Amino acid sequence: MTMTTTTTSPATPVAPSHGVLRPLGLGEVQITGGFWAERQAVNGSASLAHIEHWMEREGWIGNFDRATDGTVAEHRAGREFSDSEVYKLLEAMAWEIGRTGDAALDDRFRALVGRIAVAQERDGYLNTMFGRAGQRPRYSDLEWGHELYCYGHLFQAAVARARTRPDADDGLLALARRAADHVVETFGPDGVASVCGHPEIEPALAELGRVTGDRRYVDQATLFVERRGTGTLADIELGRAYYQDDVPVREATVLRGHAVRANYLAAGAVDVAVETQDAGLLAALTGQWETTVARRTYVTGGQGSQHEGEAFSDDFVLPPDRAYSETCAGVGSVMFSWRLLLAQGLPRYADLMERTLYNVVATSPSHDGTAYYYTNTLHQRVPGTVPPTDVASPRASSSLRAPWFAVSCCPPNVARTLASLAAYVATTDDDGLQLHQYAPTRLRTALPDGRRVELDVETAYPRDGVVRVTVAGTEDRPWTLTLRVPAWAEGAELRTPDGTQAAPPGTVAVTRRFAEGDVVELHLPVAPRVSAADPRIDAVRGCVVVERGPEVLCLESVDLGGDVSAVRLDLGPGVREADGRVLATVATTRPADQPWPYGPTSEEATTRTAEVPLVPYHDWANRGPSTMRVWLPVA
Amino acid sequence: MTMTTTTTSPATPVAPSHGVLRPLGLGEVQITGGFWAERQAVNGSASLAHIEHWMEREGWIGNFDRATDGTVAEHRAGREFSDSEVYKLLEAMAWEIGRTGDAALDDRFRALVGRIAVAQERDGYLNTMFGRAGQRPRYSDLEWGHELYCYGHLFQAAVARARTRPDADDGLLALARRAADHVVETFGPDGVASVCGHPEIEPALAELGRVTGDRRYVDQATLFVERRGTGTLADIELGRAYYQDDVPVREATVLRGHAVRANYLAAGAVDVAVETQDAGLLAALTGQWETTVARRTYVTGGQGSQHEGEAFSDDFVLPPDRAYSETCAGVGSVMFSWRLLLAQGLPRYADLMERTLYNVVATSPSHDGTAYYYTNTLHQRVPGTVPPTDVASPRASSSLRAPWFAVSCCPPNVARTLASLAAYVATTDDDGLQLHQYAPTRLRTALPDGRRVELDVETAYPRDGVVRVTVAGTEDRPWTLTLRVPAWAEGAELRTPDGTQAAPPGTVAVTRRFAEGDVVELHLPVAPRVSAADPRIDAVRGCVVVERGPEVLCLESVDLGGDVSAVRLDLGPGVREADGRVLATVATTRPADQPWPYGPTSEEATTRTAEVPLVPYHDWANRGPSTMRVWLPVA
Repeated sequence: MTMTTTTTSPATPVAPSHGVLRPLGLGEVQITGGFWAERQAVNGSASLAHIEHWMEREGWIGNFDRATDGTVAEHRAGREFSDSEVYKLLEAMAWEIGRTGDAALDDRFRALVGRIAVAQERDGYLNTMFGRAGQRPRYSDLEWGHELYCYGHLFQAAVARARTRPDADDGLLALARRAADHVVETFGPDGVASVCGHPEIEPALAELGRVTGDRRYVDQATLFVERRGTGTLADIELGRAYYQDDVPVREATVLRGHAVRANYLAAGAVDVAVETQDAGLLAALTGQWETTVARRTYVTGGQGSQHEGEAFSDDFVLPPDRAYSETCAGVGSVMFSWRLLLAQGLPRYADLMERTLYNVVATSPSHDGTAYYYTNTLHQRVPGTVPPTDVASPRASSSLRAPWFAVSCCPPNVARTLASLAAYVATTDDDGLQLHQYAPTRLRTALPDGRRVELDVETAYPRDGVVRVTVAGTEDRPWTLTLRVPAWAEGAELRTPDGTQAAPPGTVAVTRRFAEGDVVELHLPVAPRVSAADPRIDAVRGCVVVERGPEVLCLESVDLGGDVSAVRLDLGPGVREADGRVLATVATTRPADQPWPYGPTSEEATTRTAEVPLVPYHDWANRGPSTMRVWLPVA
Repeated sequence: MTMTTTTTSPATPVAPSHGVLRPLGLGEVQITGGFWAERQAVNGSASLAHIEHWMEREGWIGNFDRATDGTVAEHRAGREFSDSEVYKLLEAMAWEIGRTGDAALDDRFRALVGRIAVAQERDGYLNTMFGRAGQRPRYSDLEWGHELYCYGHLFQAAVARARTRPDADDGLLALARRAADHVVETFGPDGVASVCGHPEIEPALAELGRVTGDRRYVDQATLFVERRGTGTLADIELGRAYYQDDVPVREATVLRGHAVRANYLAAGAVDVAVETQDAGLLAALTGQWETTVARRTYVTGGQGSQHEGEAFSDDFVLPPDRAYSETCAGVGSVMFSWRLLLAQGLPRYADLMERTLYNVVATSPSHDGTAYYYTNTLHQRVPGTVPPTDVASPRASSSLRAPWFAVSCCPPNVARTLASLAAYVATTDDDGLQLHQYAPTRLRTALPDGRRVELDVETAYPRDGVVRVTVAGTEDRPWTLTLRVPAWAEGAELRTPDGTQAAPPGTVAVTRRFAEGDVVELHLPVAPRVSAADPRIDAVRGCVVVERGPEVLCLESVDLGGDVSAVRLDLGPGVREADGRVLATVATTRPADQPWPYGPTSEEATTRTAEVPLVPYHDWANRGPSTMRVWLPVA
């Protein structure tokens, strides 16, 4: 394994000091069009303002004002973790400002930082929920209080700002450091020997250590990771596995418990493993990732099948109906995978990221960016009702995308992911550049030894499978361009100035003395394909899923002209593409309503056979209430 | 529909003033041997003491002492509904004393009543959790406080005692009436216009009204039923459907929300419909029962598939893995069905009761009656760990039966059901006697016009399908003996002194001038049978269940000699019986572990084919940790 050392801190969410791959910053890589650019544009033009509006409206931002004026104990709004949502909005804004240079947004950002800063207490403590007269004492409820979790998102916001506007002089980094110093003092080796019920401070402290060069923060992250799993938190009804306090991180074999918590912790533990060069810990996390992907992940990349505890279930318990598949667990999974990709360079991590981005992260927001899925079921049995646009949903499971939730972690989590998305597209190492995600992209970077590498990527991916990489700038020395070939892309081809070659799944590399104008084309087969599941995933026995490129497709009742509960996919005619649509032949049956639904097997009468379109899962329910299924029973 | 009028109050849980069928009391019918007598014996000899021991140990009984001595605000033990568990124990004891005349148990019963009685406040209020200095005010949390729910179980205990020992002079009925009067005053037409977050007081008030003849209690039950569903409770995260406050009872079409709450409410609403002769309400409840059975009930009779909210899910969402199927929901379902049976006389209600009794209620307790399943999954994927015998399980989902739970509603609920079980075996009407459940039974009753009807039932059911009914006493006038033929019993025969006749599913009746010594034999075919599910129950597509008589069978890893996750039932050789065991030919496959569990369909290699026993589901996990499945994939 070649280890490169990062000497500067690019404008990127994760900047490890070591690793196989080196991330690029938003100054080096931009998504210039296509699927993700559209979502980034909506995120910047609509979602950020929508989120800020609701946070003001619900009083979550106002909590900081009330903490400053001394009235928060009587009038605090929102759940115990609402401060964190404001910090996630700050982080999203920071990336968006870094991405676009939006000056008006920068003003809003500074105003928000100002309101938060004055609420910080003299010793660095900052939380609107605890510690004042009439409130519970600080750190009196580590299981559910979320104080360290909130700091984590504060630190991530500060890191985003420091990396995108290092000279901003808005005080956010200093504020975060005061809070972090307070945490180190309070929870350090001689302090409170426990952890937060919701991991998040672990990756955040590691990153704050990286951006400031202050080793104490990394050490504190290490301490939190080492303490986790030793049972310092209470054995609650959901069990200590809920917050991963059941088994030490380096002894665990799979992600378990609350899926967001599990992924955030795993991400932070990779950071710690990398910064402390702890190969044993990194190996444990790699194994956990592999088992989780092989046994506890939906075909969408979604994780956490259980509503109860928003949690992973046992291996292979992945029912499509009532799949929880929380949006934020998808974000957490991207965080975990990206860190393993940087550390180890294997394309499987980018494969899962792509799947999760297209089928979980992109599924959550509505097309106009002002409503969200908190959970992402794979089988909707009852058409939803349109949620009111002026009321926060009191529950996570909205039947259609809702404008806001009492627990509204997903909107800012999606926003910060979309705003920073370009950072996940490519990396470099000593020998060249690696393209992990395919979108129209402008890349202007240099290898560690200073060699200029400038590329323009043109593609209509995922609609089309051709990815055309043009060398826009280079120097007269050889380097290696590496492209990921997704695991599903059997039969891909690479066309280079030297000719055409097969590109089997994994990575394909071209090493040459590139010249400006050189073109490398990757041809990925994106024709619809039919997949079945491991038979141990009992809930989808006898069913298949249709995928196309990185997108999982689904059948919606609006396309079927009837409920999807009793359909059979006829694989005889095959699934075909026509006029840019994927068409499947589907028989609708009429199950007999029986007083008792169990008995001798009977034949079902087919009432109708029709060729109907399948649509990308991420688009579902954008045309109003519908029933929907991802897994189609086979005739 | 013939309506009979009950003139006396038999020693039975439910004694409607009208209905098609008239219940018998424990003085008229006893189970004398076999499956249920064994369980009744264990219940009486072990479970009641076990339950009392744990309630003392956990301080739930002690709460009443502390309420009396004024220290309960500082030292209250248990959850907000723990009083109700003590009352359910009282009810179970009352039935057991009625069943056996156990004098020592009667002493324990009286001692317990004494400790409770002194804790009652002057105005009739009784609850150890609310209303004192340092406690929350009375009725300040109708959503979760469970105060009226607790009264409900108190009233049911008092009713059980009043019906089994009308001259007991222990003060329990008077205590209950004082509490009921307080409820009527507080929640009557001019009082607090709301309901309890957990239904239960509804059937209890109706029964208290029946036993005392005090119409105000029935009126109050009616008021509570009418108020339910009008949104007087808060819209919580789980939604108002959780406590059935989403839709008025008479407008609802199916049970929904928390499955115990839903069934208790439905039971009470039937009581109200019967007492007020409200045909519309009764029709609504009948429809709800039918749809719930057709679409929301496991093959075991279990109800409520969701862990989240311990709740019913959408129609046909019945995954076997992580089936919640709460034991108490089974008890509630028996309550609901029994009331409809008395009101309407249809055998389908007794069919579901039988299924639920054998496969939910009998599954919960261990063979020795000192450990319980709170939930009843139909697919155990990971072998459990033996729970400690000296610690209450902090959660409902124990991997093996646990001695006690932080929420321990199931042990006393099972106990009161088993102790009163004989009451569900038979009924009478003006024309004769109806046998609904088959067990060795002694019946000594009279028809409303005074005709003596005395029967002895001999059977080895469910092991054997022959039910032999001998007339032990009768008068020289004709009457009708009606026997239920379960819906699964295609091909049953009835043998009477007049000959043999086919007995198709439903009921079969013999009307004659019976003589002492006359024998009627019902021959039910109990050979193993294979059933599939409605295809809309997606989670069990491609699977079958094997049933034998009223028992659902399952495959346990201890019989397979390996994990049950990858088995295929080979229907070619058929399922056969030998030496009293049900044997099935099962192929074990070895699914390939893939990094990603979705892809092109592949053949699975069969590694072993063997004939293995299937065991009654209610027996599972009585031989230590195992994996288990009820639904078997078909080869």
